[in-house]
Amino acid sequence: MQSTMQDVPLTVTRILAHGALVHGDATVTTWTGDGEPLRRSFREVAERSVQLAHALRDELGVTGDQRVATLMWNNSDHLEAYLAIPSMGAVLHTLNLRLPVEQLVFIVNHAADRVVLVNGSLLPLLAPLLPHLPSVEHVIVSGPGDRAPLEGCRPRVHEYEELIAGRPVSGFDWPQLDERQAAALCYTSGTTGEPKGVLYSHRSVYLHAMEVNAASAFGLTPADTCLPVVPMFHVNAWGLPHAAFMAGTSLLMPDRFLQPAPLADMIAAERPTVSAGVPTIWAGLLAELDARPRDLSSLRTVISGGSAAPPAMMRGFHERHGVRIVQAWGMTETSPLGSVAYPPAGLSEEEEWPYRVTQGRLPSSVEARLAGPGGELLPWDGKSAGELEVRGPWIAGAYYGGAAGEPLRPEDKFSPDGWLRTGDVGTITTDGFLTLTDRAKDVIKSGGEWISSVELENHLMAHPDVAEAAVVAVPDEKWGERPLATVVLKDGSSADYAALRAFLGERVARWQLPERWASVVTVPKTSVGKFDKKVLRKQYADGELEVTVLA
Amino acid sequence: MQSTMQDVPLTVTRILAHGALVHGDATVTTWTGDGEPLRRSFREVAERSVQLAHALRDELGVTGDQRVATLMWNNSDHLEAYLAIPSMGAVLHTLNLRLPVEQLVFIVNHAADRVVLVNGSLLPLLAPLLPHLPSVEHVIVSGPGDRAPLEGCRPRVHEYEELIAGRPVSGFDWPQLDERQAAALCYTSGTTGEPKGVLYSHRSVYLHAMEVNAASAFGLTPADTCLPVVPMFHVNAWGLPHAAFMAGTSLLMPDRFLQPAPLADMIAAERPTVSAGVPTIWAGLLAELDARPRDLSSLRTVISGGSAAPPAMMRGFHERHGVRIVQAWGMTETSPLGSVAYPPAGLSEEEEWPYRVTQGRLPSSVEARLAGPGGELLPWDGKSAGELEVRGPWIAGAYYGGAAGEPLRPEDKFSPDGWLRTGDVGTITTDGFLTLTDRAKDVIKSGGEWISSVELENHLMAHPDVAEAAVVAVPDEKWGERPLATVVLKDGSSADYAALRAFLGERVARWQLPERWASVVTVPKTSVGKFDKKVLRKQYADGELEVTVLA
Repeated sequence: MQSTMQDVPLTVTRILAHGALVHGDATVTTWTGDGEPLRRSFREVAERSVQLAHALRDELGVTGDQRVATLMWNNSDHLEAYLAIPSMGAVLHTLNLRLPVEQLVFIVNHAADRVVLVNGSLLPLLAPLLPHLPSVEHVIVSGPGDRAPLEGCRPRVHEYEELIAGRPVSGFDWPQLDERQAAALCYTSGTTGEPKGVLYSHRSVYLHAMEVNAASAFGLTPADTCLPVVPMFHVNAWGLPHAAFMAGTSLLMPDRFLQPAPLADMIAAERPTVSAGVPTIWAGLLAELDARPRDLSSLRTVISGGSAAPPAMMRGFHERHGVRIVQAWGMTETSPLGSVAYPPAGLSEEEEWPYRVTQGRLPSSVEARLAGPGGELLPWDGKSAGELEVRGPWIAGAYYGGAAGEPLRPEDKFSPDGWLRTGDVGTITTDGFLTLTDRAKDVIKSGGEWISSVELENHLMAHPDVAEAAVVAVPDEKWGERPLATVVLKDGSSADYAALRAFLGERVARWQLPERWASVVTVPKTSVGKFDKKVLRKQYADGELEVTVLA
Repeated sequence: MQSTMQDVPLTVTRILAHGALVHGDATVTTWTGDGEPLRRSFREVAERSVQLAHALRDELGVTGDQRVATLMWNNSDHLEAYLAIPSMGAVLHTLNLRLPVEQLVFIVNHAADRVVLVNGSLLPLLAPLLPHLPSVEHVIVSGPGDRAPLEGCRPRVHEYEELIAGRPVSGFDWPQLDERQAAALCYTSGTTGEPKGVLYSHRSVYLHAMEVNAASAFGLTPADTCLPVVPMFHVNAWGLPHAAFMAGTSLLMPDRFLQPAPLADMIAAERPTVSAGVPTIWAGLLAELDARPRDLSSLRTVISGGSAAPPAMMRGFHERHGVRIVQAWGMTETSPLGSVAYPPAGLSEEEEWPYRVTQGRLPSSVEARLAGPGGELLPWDGKSAGELEVRGPWIAGAYYGGAAGEPLRPEDKFSPDGWLRTGDVGTITTDGFLTLTDRAKDVIKSGGEWISSVELENHLMAHPDVAEAAVVAVPDEKWGERPLATVVLKDGSSADYAALRAFLGERVARWQLPERWASVVTVPKTSVGKFDKKVLRKQYADGELEVTVLA
């Protein structure tokens, strides 16, 4: 029996119209460094979005679901692109300006972007790539920055302000969109292989924005001002721009001023209530605040995601600056909102910490399961560690794939029944709190059980003689894999492997204890400072480590 | 270009699974009067829902989209029906126990309900109707109350607890549902004509629950306890049961204890943080609290909807008991969440009041327009009054209609392009605040403009000599309609019509001033105390009023 409710699609077009009409007086403030911030009302932003749509269609000939790329900081022009491009049926392709240039070239070509909107300050990055981007016919430049790098380039060059000036601010005949139609495209930077595109739908963007606005997620309201420090080229700034336009939440846009000092200044001056970004940013801000305190009392919630937030940093914000950091988990493939770590009600501050350092609880639209080493489903008992698999209306079911754009479902990323394999290993408690412990590729698969390398490392690094420790899986004839513990001992330490193993033995199950031990001068690291376990595995395979095997 | 996101339907089944798994420790507390409240965890409620689904299918043979009715108070058994019945693909038909019995008979027959779940205390209402309900094969009785009224009745009678006892608490093979499939059915009581069914879909229930949980709506979180005073037979208790199970919000269920004293007692004892109900309930509670104060400090938000909340009542709660009443607007056809009246940020308490007495702002999923007397669309300027028309994924597009169940789209309820005509007349400001002033049928259509009868009445009743005033439209050869003012003068008053008209003339535009005046002993009222303007119009038409016409 079909219901008799109206069949109205969930679209970005609706978000645009709603923000303009019901919350037209909300504001978008873009930081300009030392100058006066640029302030626009939602009404103006919406009108300029309509002008941009007119310009893209009438002047540049963008039709159908062509891709329009942005290489921009967080600012109000970028927000206009966020609203106009999907609403006109085209696909917003946000370019991550921190990608290696060869990957940028790859993804622009793969997406066949026809137009690139770019901030003037980023022309030195874009201009040298243009000869390698044959699909790009138009470059639209917005904001300050020398235009010289574009001189003599092949695509037509437009100034954003000139391009939209004088065009109608209303009356664009937005197409009737199917909510499952593509709205935005974001490539994962993936440590191995080519970048893979996640093609968000109007439905997924809309539902995700609704969830962002849930009181148990980020809870945006018209009384809030939101500072998205997370870049708009990074998983759509975690959905905050669309969510804010939906909720009537004023936005404070940092533009390119992402250094600790200007961030502290803009928070003190503009008094945002909610912010979101990666732990590195917050760690930098904390150091700045410790050195030169500012008034951060406006912030009710600061979301930290992208990687685990160090508890000491969370405590530092809380105890020294009265700012509450809330952990959240997600990834490009999950739009990204996967879980948010609010503690249960009625706990003391100290009782809350064990919950606040988890990844938190999943919303109803994100279904989760834990898959063990053999693919079997594990219980939610807070102990059984498995790979987290998720399912839901804003979770990717495939990548925007091969040369012809056909969907791509690599086996290591999608289960046969269509769930996303997150590549994260963790546990879930009976009351729904997710704790991620390892990347699946770093887990040691020993005799049909998993051993957490991160857990062994954390215990080892708690030993007073250990400066650093990295644990990797090495092949083992009997068990498949076993852990190899590599340690950096502190100067003058006298600990031997047997003592370290005994220390571990008091903290983990006996079958998890490493037999193989090696000393290293330093743990090899990636360019972003993470342990580079590939290198260690190769050193072991190549016989470059001096390994002691304990009986 | 289709996106590559997963195509996962929005269903009640998901809400059920989520509440059980992620928020299994949240509780449903059902008030029992003087006894110990009945407490069940979400996990238990979910398990019992599975048992109920097994019982309905395996024992009672409920299949497909058959209708299962409930005639129940707000309690945890009713919540189990809310979760189990839609999840198994059947349709939950909530019966309004305050309907006239002939309407109850009509709607059970129209829906062809196969099963009725009923609270024991309501058997005196149901039993006499059963001979007139040929489709009902099973009656399931839950909770206290004499079973004698059912003796000798035709349908098979089951005890709820006996029926579900011993059945599996997991492993029900829930069907794969299309999200547009019907989930629940609720008939509007409609003052004229037969009741009309609104057939909610899984999609509409799910999206509506998400919006209820938005921070700018009711904002339920796991830290809240919600007391739905609004009955679960009244537009699904405004979506709160499903929203609470989605958000992990504990529920306090009042069962049949809806009188002011037990409500005050249960709030003081169980400390809910959010509640929702109609103004009559809150007015009664306020009188009770003024007489015998209780600790209501747990309540952060009390939603009032169904009809306009008297400002004096809102102020009384605020000033004397520290409770914040928030107005919301909706109707059966809108699921019901249409708008919520939170004031803008940064205002003083006094500045907030003009916003708090409006119907508030609409969420992004509810699109609104104002249609003038000739159907033309009116601006949102806070002045132009038109009939509110709405559109959105949880707004009805038709009624569950005629004898064969085909969709019914009466012209006075749906525009040709499918929008719902709410029958409410009002204005919307530039910043999106909706104020409803009249029912469309009570507005005076004079020369292509509308005159608000409610506005004229309110002004007249502010005159010191006027006890009551009712203004109705009467036919006029020149203007189509003109206002007739009927007044009840206070004892000993000396005011004449010319003086009253002059009084009005200082407050409204000249063309709105009534020419026709009549005195009445009392304004005729409906059974719920509203002015009965039908009667006045008929008295005028029949020449029963002594009308003075002012030049």
